[in-house]
Amino acid sequence: MSAQPNADEESQAQPLLDPSLHRSLSNVTSQVAIVGSNVCPIESLDYEIYENDFFKQDWRSRGKVQIFQYIFVKWLLCFLIGLIVSLIGFCNNLAVENLAGVKFVITSNMMLVKRYGMAFLVFFSSNFVLTLFASIITAFIAPAAAGSGIPEVKAYLNGVDAPGIFTLKTLLVKGLNVRSYHFLAHHNFFDKMIVHFNMFGSLMKDRIVGSITAVSSSLLIGKAGPMVHTGACVAALLGQGGSRKYGLTWRWLRYFKNDRDRRDFVTCGSAAGIAASFRAPVGGVLFSLEEMASWWRSALLWRCFFTTAVVAIMLRALIDVCLSGKCGLFGTGGLIMFDVTSQNTTYHIKDVPPVLVLGVIGGLLGSFYNFLLEKVLRIYSYIYGKKPIYKIILACSISVFTSCLLFGLPWLASCQPCPIDASEACPTIGRSGNYKKFQCPPGHYNDLASLIFNTNDDAIKNLFSKDTDSEFQYSSILIFFATCFFLSIFSYGIVAPAGLFVPVIVTGASYGRFVGMLVGSHSNLNHGLFAVLGAASLLGGSMRMTVSLCVIILELTNNLLLLPLIMVVLLVSKTVADAFNGNVYDIIMKLKGFPYLEAHAEPYMRQLTVEDVVTGPLQLFNVIEKVENIVHVLRTTGHHGFPVIDERSHSESPVLFGLVLRAHLIVLLRKKAFLTTAVRADSDAFRHFSAMDFTKRGSGNGDKIEDIELTEEEMEMFIDLHPFCNSSPYTVVETMSLAKALILFREVGLRHLLVIPKISNRSPVVGILTRHDFMPEHILGVHPLLVRSRWKRIRFQLPRFLKLF
Amino acid sequence: MSAQPNADEESQAQPLLDPSLHRSLSNVTSQVAIVGSNVCPIESLDYEIYENDFFKQDWRSRGKVQIFQYIFVKWLLCFLIGLIVSLIGFCNNLAVENLAGVKFVITSNMMLVKRYGMAFLVFFSSNFVLTLFASIITAFIAPAAAGSGIPEVKAYLNGVDAPGIFTLKTLLVKGLNVRSYHFLAHHNFFDKMIVHFNMFGSLMKDRIVGSITAVSSSLLIGKAGPMVHTGACVAALLGQGGSRKYGLTWRWLRYFKNDRDRRDFVTCGSAAGIAASFRAPVGGVLFSLEEMASWWRSALLWRCFFTTAVVAIMLRALIDVCLSGKCGLFGTGGLIMFDVTSQNTTYHIKDVPPVLVLGVIGGLLGSFYNFLLEKVLRIYSYIYGKKPIYKIILACSISVFTSCLLFGLPWLASCQPCPIDASEACPTIGRSGNYKKFQCPPGHYNDLASLIFNTNDDAIKNLFSKDTDSEFQYSSILIFFATCFFLSIFSYGIVAPAGLFVPVIVTGASYGRFVGMLVGSHSNLNHGLFAVLGAASLLGGSMRMTVSLCVIILELTNNLLLLPLIMVVLLVSKTVADAFNGNVYDIIMKLKGFPYLEAHAEPYMRQLTVEDVVTGPLQLFNVIEKVENIVHVLRTTGHHGFPVIDERSHSESPVLFGLVLRAHLIVLLRKKAFLTTAVRADSDAFRHFSAMDFTKRGSGNGDKIEDIELTEEEMEMFIDLHPFCNSSPYTVVETMSLAKALILFREVGLRHLLVIPKISNRSPVVGILTRHDFMPEHILGVHPLLVRSRWKRIRFQLPRFLKLF
Repeated sequence: MSAQPNADEESQAQPLLDPSLHRSLSNVTSQVAIVGSNVCPIESLDYEIYENDFFKQDWRSRGKVQIFQYIFVKWLLCFLIGLIVSLIGFCNNLAVENLAGVKFVITSNMMLVKRYGMAFLVFFSSNFVLTLFASIITAFIAPAAAGSGIPEVKAYLNGVDAPGIFTLKTLLVKGLNVRSYHFLAHHNFFDKMIVHFNMFGSLMKDRIVGSITAVSSSLLIGKAGPMVHTGACVAALLGQGGSRKYGLTWRWLRYFKNDRDRRDFVTCGSAAGIAASFRAPVGGVLFSLEEMASWWRSALLWRCFFTTAVVAIMLRALIDVCLSGKCGLFGTGGLIMFDVTSQNTTYHIKDVPPVLVLGVIGGLLGSFYNFLLEKVLRIYSYIYGKKPIYKIILACSISVFTSCLLFGLPWLASCQPCPIDASEACPTIGRSGNYKKFQCPPGHYNDLASLIFNTNDDAIKNLFSKDTDSEFQYSSILIFFATCFFLSIFSYGIVAPAGLFVPVIVTGASYGRFVGMLVGSHSNLNHGLFAVLGAASLLGGSMRMTVSLCVIILELTNNLLLLPLIMVVLLVSKTVADAFNGNVYDIIMKLKGFPYLEAHAEPYMRQLTVEDVVTGPLQLFNVIEKVENIVHVLRTTGHHGFPVIDERSHSESPVLFGLVLRAHLIVLLRKKAFLTTAVRADSDAFRHFSAMDFTKRGSGNGDKIEDIELTEEEMEMFIDLHPFCNSSPYTVVETMSLAKALILFREVGLRHLLVIPKISNRSPVVGILTRHDFMPEHILGVHPLLVRSRWKRIRFQLPRFLKLF
Repeated sequence: MSAQPNADEESQAQPLLDPSLHRSLSNVTSQVAIVGSNVCPIESLDYEIYENDFFKQDWRSRGKVQIFQYIFVKWLLCFLIGLIVSLIGFCNNLAVENLAGVKFVITSNMMLVKRYGMAFLVFFSSNFVLTLFASIITAFIAPAAAGSGIPEVKAYLNGVDAPGIFTLKTLLVKGLNVRSYHFLAHHNFFDKMIVHFNMFGSLMKDRIVGSITAVSSSLLIGKAGPMVHTGACVAALLGQGGSRKYGLTWRWLRYFKNDRDRRDFVTCGSAAGIAASFRAPVGGVLFSLEEMASWWRSALLWRCFFTTAVVAIMLRALIDVCLSGKCGLFGTGGLIMFDVTSQNTTYHIKDVPPVLVLGVIGGLLGSFYNFLLEKVLRIYSYIYGKKPIYKIILACSISVFTSCLLFGLPWLASCQPCPIDASEACPTIGRSGNYKKFQCPPGHYNDLASLIFNTNDDAIKNLFSKDTDSEFQYSSILIFFATCFFLSIFSYGIVAPAGLFVPVIVTGASYGRFVGMLVGSHSNLNHGLFAVLGAASLLGGSMRMTVSLCVIILELTNNLLLLPLIMVVLLVSKTVADAFNGNVYDIIMKLKGFPYLEAHAEPYMRQLTVEDVVTGPLQLFNVIEKVENIVHVLRTTGHHGFPVIDERSHSESPVLFGLVLRAHLIVLLRKKAFLTTAVRADSDAFRHFSAMDFTKRGSGNGDKIEDIELTEEEMEMFIDLHPFCNSSPYTVVETMSLAKALILFREVGLRHLLVIPKISNRSPVVGILTRHDFMPEHILGVHPLLVRSRWKRIRFQLPRFLKLF
């Protein structure tokens, strides 16, 4: 996968010093990015109000009923998103718990009768098969489903659209003998969904199934990231509302066929994803606010809150159903996943230093984690670039390696005698519990097996548990920590849906518990609470969130009294880690080549004016333009917006009339709205157009210019662009600083920003700015001297501090 | 207070139909608003990057050290804000608990020995004196401290600056024999603060002291709103950093002398205020995000989180200090104010209908509450307009009325025998408890007195308490509910610092408990939990927040299992209430006449273009302008920004050169940077200017044009505006729809938006848009026909639904 020079340059800093290399690359490579494990062309989204005659007419014609319809349907869709995501999340959980649970029960039973070889074989082969299955369906059916999906959704919400993010060609996912899949597929509502959105269903199905199998296969990967992507998929599909190909155009969904409404739905969907995977509704809203969304309004906050409220209530109801024991090994899990409430959580000033130490270690480890992850992903993508089959081979070898480690390492730990005052059965009976027997004699337990030979959720539960301060040995915890740390880094990059949240929590909890054991009786906090703080610190050090992590941890553990300490730990670890590198999702996003637009302007942008970065040549259209010219320009350039000038006005010099979009030009060409002479058409000529013709289709569904065939005669005709232009595009003067233009571009959510000259006796427009013109790579390519300037140097030395600027 | 025709017109709808009235008023009255209880002139804030030669030079000269300094000092200031606000909040609490506590202990002791008359006298007179004191210092010393302050801070964060919000002329607050004040004033750090910021200290002191006395005086008002205002004050004062008048210019604070940084500090301060008053750090961040802030960035989220983390840790440490019993009657309060944890909170599907009913009632009551509050405030402001002394009289009569009610009503309730299995002493010993004895014989308690003859916090604790399902009688709860509902509405408008949160929580909790008693044993939830849900529903119905209320309630009550129900209740009550009227703070803000700029465009704005609302006459300057003209224009208009055109350029028609601000022109006039001839000056002529000269002073500190005296000779000279102009102001074309211009204006945070002509052969600028031009009152004044149009009608019929648009 050699198509990511941007990311390479940015992080290795060396190539930036070579201007020639940069100048040639900057406008070629930034048009593609890696979505999942697939290279896709990318486009920008456009949140500008497009003002042409048809849309204006459409607004005027919207009455009270339409507004009600719009509002009602929008809320209804949010309700459906919540409903579907909670069902998927619940079934996902159910399937993982049952698959992984059955596996561990069978192996444990075999261990009990000392058939160790057989147990290993079952464990090994089930993991191998599940991983193989997950990686095959991901690699060959839905490559976009690989990885966590959070970087892709985050880029989408920033305005980067890749056709593969939420859609895929129809492919049948066959032969899935996964119980959960049948459950899903036979579930009435979901089934209907799949029929309707057959076109997109496969990605979702694949992400769901892939995620279940991958997580069940004892790989050290999480399910939160894939759930976020699933939620965003559900939202995007619902918002799209049917497809013309299948004759399922729902008229009342036509108002949502624009980027603004779709962005709202995707934001709600990603909030619902987190809410469903951690049963943390408020945390979900805050996660999508703090980490995912680039634009935010109060109304959107309420909508997200509504969606996650639906998720919370559905989950609560489904858990009620499970309480009667119908859910197999899922058992009687409550709404709080890792409850660490204790009546007497007290701590005083002397407990603060260990907590600060935890924060600092968390920051260091977190940034080191991000650093290693980037390196590993870089190596992986190099390997994947060689041959696609390597994707499968790598996944399988990771699985083999994992199985061997998980089964082999507990043999290193010595058996411990069961404590007399244990609060639960020792050794553990059944699947989950603190005291795994493994190879030990009766009355003894293997502490390392309790952690490592277990599902991730159970390992977290054991680490967080109170009244077990003497359960673990130093060596076991250390082995477990090292295993988790490195295994999770190597497992993330495989071609299967994989999240980062749970692995980071496990790793953080293990070293937190270790620190707790070191501090020992000098602290009032029990080791379980140290594990919670450790998990918080590693999350803070790796993901760099504050409020949302705080609330998610609170909702996971239900210990409000710990809140001040969690806040301290998060702040310390985030600050320490920010000194070294960026947020893990930003690193992955950069690696994948998404042109993410930051909300703040870099200091050197204040030194540059707009005209310094605008690159030519500019393609202009006349307001009455020859068909041939339009076709030629569309075929020879990849631009999506063209300024339109009017030379026939009363003024002696041409006047800027507006902006016309490629998509709209293609509609005009396809509908052949041509004039034989170059005079302005009367309004009757456009009666057969309506606003519907210009609404944005689902991503990747637009017509291509290559598909349109025109005769020689038609080529000689004219198109009157008057009614089709956006007659009031946003403009900036060429002398404006780049920082100021960026603020306008980013805050309003533009796709094209026209640059007008300071003195008006030249052409009325001198250039057009797009997202790529604001990318540091492009700017530094055009102005290589900046690299050596003071500003640039500071930027490299204080990469993260400037974010706080 | 007759100066609020805007607000009157908007809500009464009738005058809107009279275009003549409107046209004459729209540009006169919108320049003032009521801050606290004072009419102030208001200005807009400006978040645009001002690009003139001096600022550009300043950016270029900023090195690594300066950037570090900026970042470090900004975080340091946030730390100080957190520290100071938590100290103030804690002392505030301490003072209220002790003042009110002593009062109740003394009266209770007198009641115990049946000296009822004497008890009433003590109760009555202490309330009266405290109220009188609070209203006098508020009315005569710091009128801006009246009311909750949240509307003022919210308007500030939206970009409306009133000189009185955060500053006041130096006035000494003398003779305050309030223990807490001495505590504050003698506290070393705070003392230093007051010396440094003597100029502004008085408002803060007054707000703090006023709030303590008012809350202690048994009036039904809260302390959260005043704490938010206090936090914002502290933040604004710290950010301002010294004053020139006192020779205390801190050079390293010069970077913060702009509206953007000040906005960040005020946001952090208001978050800290909520965090300190409810001990809810995360809730504070979310409150300032959801309700207060109009602009938001991730970096600001972290900064707020940091500030509230400091508050949380400080509060935790201070509470630790109090655990040893040194805090008088404050006792051993924990970090969670109203703990309702119960191990076995279970609920099933049958518990949902009562919760939905609660939500609906909460929505209806909440909107009715807002409606009544508006009417009462309108009457009060009419009364206050007559004579200032009425402010004091009204406050005193409310106090008398309240004292009589609180003391008199419990006599209506019949005495109940103490339950045998009571979890606490019955009748109550000491101050707070569930079973107040009041006039009852031994072994009995008065349930109404337990609620009404108590501090608000204790009443809430009693209502939220579990295992007390049979404590209250229907009649007592109903009487208490009615008293709270009306008393809190009448108390809010008095001229004293007064919050709304606590009264709404008390009122909501009482009817929630009532509903719980009606449902009785049909539900698994105990009555205390019903009270929590009731409080949530009334908060949702009145304040219309979702996420932040959810988290605040969570942090107040520490019952995470209740979360799904709280989410439902909030959504239902908000939806129901939104059908009737707006958020209580928006109503008050409108009443006070703040030109609040909404984030969304009203539908009719899409039908209007910019040129439809631009009003003349436009004042232009030449880029080299005669002093006399500048002085004349500044004296005769109140505008704050003037377009500058360049007639001498190479073009035949004049060219727009930029925008110059009134404040900068005044600096030039004061410094007498004049030229004798009308030719462009060389760069040496401006050596004695620096960027510092053009930084924005603290609000209200700018020079006035009237203060500048110029000789006849100087009047004939010229000023070269080239280096002082913002050379790249944001512009829009006159044909752009108003909705689109509003989005630019609002998202970027502008103060002036230049309108340029479509065809360039006229003047290069046709008008200038400011905040007031986007106000519905102004637009409908200019276009009275819109009132009768379909769009307008819809807007009036669905006032709130359109917010969701």
